[in-house]
Amino acid sequence: MVTPLLTDLYQFTMAYAYWKAGKHLDRAVLEPSSSPLNSSLLTVYLRYCAVKLIMKIVCFDLYFRKSPFSGEFTIFGGLEECIRFIANFKITEDDIKFLRSVMPTCEDGFFEYLSSIDCSDVEVYAIPEGYVVFPKVPLMRIEGPVAVVQLLETPFLSLVNYASLVTTNAARHRFIAGKSKNLLEFGLRRAQGPDGGISASRYSYMGGFDATSNVAAGRLFGIPIRGTHSHAFSLDEIIDKELTSSDGSNKCEDFVFLVQSWLSRIKDSSSLCGTFGETSHSELAAFTSYALAFPNSFLALVDTYDVMRSGVPNFCAVALALNDMGYKAVGIRLDSGDLAYQSVETRKFFRAIEKEFGIVGFGKMSITASNDLNEETIDALNKQGHEVDAFGIGTYLVTCYAQAALGCVFKLVEINKQPRIKLSEDVTKVSIPCKKKCYRLYGKEGYPLVDIMTGEDEPSPKVGERLLCRHPFNESKRAYVVPQQVEELLKCYWPGNSGD
Amino acid sequence: MVTPLLTDLYQFTMAYAYWKAGKHLDRAVLEPSSSPLNSSLLTVYLRYCAVKLIMKIVCFDLYFRKSPFSGEFTIFGGLEECIRFIANFKITEDDIKFLRSVMPTCEDGFFEYLSSIDCSDVEVYAIPEGYVVFPKVPLMRIEGPVAVVQLLETPFLSLVNYASLVTTNAARHRFIAGKSKNLLEFGLRRAQGPDGGISASRYSYMGGFDATSNVAAGRLFGIPIRGTHSHAFSLDEIIDKELTSSDGSNKCEDFVFLVQSWLSRIKDSSSLCGTFGETSHSELAAFTSYALAFPNSFLALVDTYDVMRSGVPNFCAVALALNDMGYKAVGIRLDSGDLAYQSVETRKFFRAIEKEFGIVGFGKMSITASNDLNEETIDALNKQGHEVDAFGIGTYLVTCYAQAALGCVFKLVEINKQPRIKLSEDVTKVSIPCKKKCYRLYGKEGYPLVDIMTGEDEPSPKVGERLLCRHPFNESKRAYVVPQQVEELLKCYWPGNSGD
Repeated sequence: MVTPLLTDLYQFTMAYAYWKAGKHLDRAVLEPSSSPLNSSLLTVYLRYCAVKLIMKIVCFDLYFRKSPFSGEFTIFGGLEECIRFIANFKITEDDIKFLRSVMPTCEDGFFEYLSSIDCSDVEVYAIPEGYVVFPKVPLMRIEGPVAVVQLLETPFLSLVNYASLVTTNAARHRFIAGKSKNLLEFGLRRAQGPDGGISASRYSYMGGFDATSNVAAGRLFGIPIRGTHSHAFSLDEIIDKELTSSDGSNKCEDFVFLVQSWLSRIKDSSSLCGTFGETSHSELAAFTSYALAFPNSFLALVDTYDVMRSGVPNFCAVALALNDMGYKAVGIRLDSGDLAYQSVETRKFFRAIEKEFGIVGFGKMSITASNDLNEETIDALNKQGHEVDAFGIGTYLVTCYAQAALGCVFKLVEINKQPRIKLSEDVTKVSIPCKKKCYRLYGKEGYPLVDIMTGEDEPSPKVGERLLCRHPFNESKRAYVVPQQVEELLKCYWPGNSGD
Repeated sequence: MVTPLLTDLYQFTMAYAYWKAGKHLDRAVLEPSSSPLNSSLLTVYLRYCAVKLIMKIVCFDLYFRKSPFSGEFTIFGGLEECIRFIANFKITEDDIKFLRSVMPTCEDGFFEYLSSIDCSDVEVYAIPEGYVVFPKVPLMRIEGPVAVVQLLETPFLSLVNYASLVTTNAARHRFIAGKSKNLLEFGLRRAQGPDGGISASRYSYMGGFDATSNVAAGRLFGIPIRGTHSHAFSLDEIIDKELTSSDGSNKCEDFVFLVQSWLSRIKDSSSLCGTFGETSHSELAAFTSYALAFPNSFLALVDTYDVMRSGVPNFCAVALALNDMGYKAVGIRLDSGDLAYQSVETRKFFRAIEKEFGIVGFGKMSITASNDLNEETIDALNKQGHEVDAFGIGTYLVTCYAQAALGCVFKLVEINKQPRIKLSEDVTKVSIPCKKKCYRLYGKEGYPLVDIMTGEDEPSPKVGERLLCRHPFNESKRAYVVPQQVEELLKCYWPGNSGD
């Protein structure tokens, strides 16, 4: 679980500096409570007022400056985890004990204050998770007492940065692969440790993947789980050769023999003959024993020896034997070599089997490809022409190899209703001050046209009314838009006390 | 915590295929137990033998093929977490329930088997964590029943890959920065979620960093924690202006006034004059209130306005006022702009202050630099000449931006004492078969010369005896070595039952 200590130390040192500067105000307000009117309720009330007073109300925007992967869009991820974090925000006595050791010179009152805070004075507005988002437009707006909001900066950035990055990466892979392909996330072993792998699976699914190999992520988030077997799978001797048919009506005493006879028929077929040579017995044994274990979901990794000379004919022999018993094999996986060529040749072979033996649908058997795939390699496969139905993607997806970080920032835009700006010689780093409202304007066909930001008190755009939209940093970029629909982007996800 | 479900589905499907193929053998061995000799103890013993029999004993090597970052070395990280994982390896009833839903066609006996397994039959040999390691030489050798060892593949890769990658990255940053610099890890907000950030902090420390900003990681692993304040820190009105001196002997009623008078003295000094212009009042107020909160550890971020015109003189005024009260300021942080130039100019100013006001040691005040630093930018700073004492490194360190994944693999090298090899048209992907012993040979000065692998039963290298070492894939690379010291690299970290 993400605890409030999962933050940068400076957030605590800043909270202390704010606290320290404000505590006399606290005392000043509390002094009247020593009057005859003193009551514990009044003390509580006054303390509440004091905290309100000393803790300036600030407004921070969380946004990024540039879409990743040299792209034009980003998908926002991580919001649910942020809200869960603030809902559970509590600095425990153990946490306090540790913080005292790290900040030994800080006064006791500060630690008492820390142990008292929660996020009930904080308000969070955000664009819905999974939305397409653009640079500079705040993904989240966080308002509340400065010392508390400060403690949210690092956890929020940590929860949003990678989540949005990998969701975007997944969406880009979906875009290049096309809607009809199956996309499988295989990245657990290359992620930033086991928990990085869990995040990767979660947000790849959000970005448009169909399934993961990660069993724990499947369990946590209900993501479909997929797998084949590995190159290391090997079982030479098959002792239990029996297979009951799919409908339970008959039993094959020697499934191994059935597979072997199918292999002979394939080899003897004049129309198939010549396309392969000596098949591997060891591979056939591995396929057969795997099929005996999973007759309903037989998917074979066919490149351990030689895809076209051994793997594919061996797979077909097993698939045909399964077919005799009423089972439908799933297909093959290619994990090395020229995936475009191999998939095309395999498809041809599947179709030839369908024709030769009259097995309807055999030609459409699924072909999965893996082996360091990414946007570029899938694009190259598309250009070459391929017959792959599913892509298994690991390293390049989960590490976001092409750009390993999204630079989300958390910038102060208002203190006590006064606007704040961060200036920089680098114009892309200048922040846009003031609490904002953000809108997505839609055109006639229901497609979004533009996202705009306005000041909090400015009138909102109206349907059918012409509006001049200006680029915040580029004077020459401006356009008139007549929205057919107006969506307010920042919705309230955490109302704080104001929602009571 | 890392659970056994944090793995790829195919590990479980393979385990099932092995189990399914072996269960009749299991039954055959257990039949004698229905003899008059039957006793629960005998049943247990026979079941044990059966499990031994059906579960082939395999040996896997975990290694990588190429050092990352186009470099010549890697630092091994993640071992402790692997051993902790197998020590706690237990598939719970809840896990089983979920696995049944994922693998609905598998037989009950398999799930009973799964719930019974632990890692007591597994042995793990490994190179010590933190060692410099090289391609192809196994970092870990894992022996045991195939179905169990298979379940370790993904968790081990997940625990070792990123750990070793980021440790190596940290070590490379240490190498380029030099021994005398302080290296601070600031990457939490750019890691793969909060737990990716924890791993990043842990292994950056192992790779030679001095501290982290991540409070939770500091707590978990005892890593020193560091922080400054942020650009957003702002406190215009200071109500409590009092500061007690370091030794408690006197009290300054108006520390703000003391700071202001030092700023005037700096401005009036003919030797310092002219190097800066109008300083920011707001920055000075922020520095002063931060110093009041942390008089013992005042470290100011000086680039909010203008480093040389405002930030550095403001810092010096506060540091000089603190000095009056017996406190020693820590220094400044630069987070933008030309870090080499700014650090050199700041150092000059510090030295001028030391000279002008006779404050011994002021010239040596610490200068920390941050802002998207990495190996290349530090190298560039070194070439330009700089006065930076400490580097704060985030994104490029924790995401391993230059190469976001280390391709560790887990390859079968032996089944039931029979060697296994993975062949590939790509020679770099061919595995080296057989259970191995690995040695590091040291020369006269105690420096390591070469790592070698031998077959398990080959004689070990001996001190003073000439030995021909051959490159495994490059015939022409060979060398005679006379070791002065021989270290066996693979040490037993998990003896399994054999250690009972």
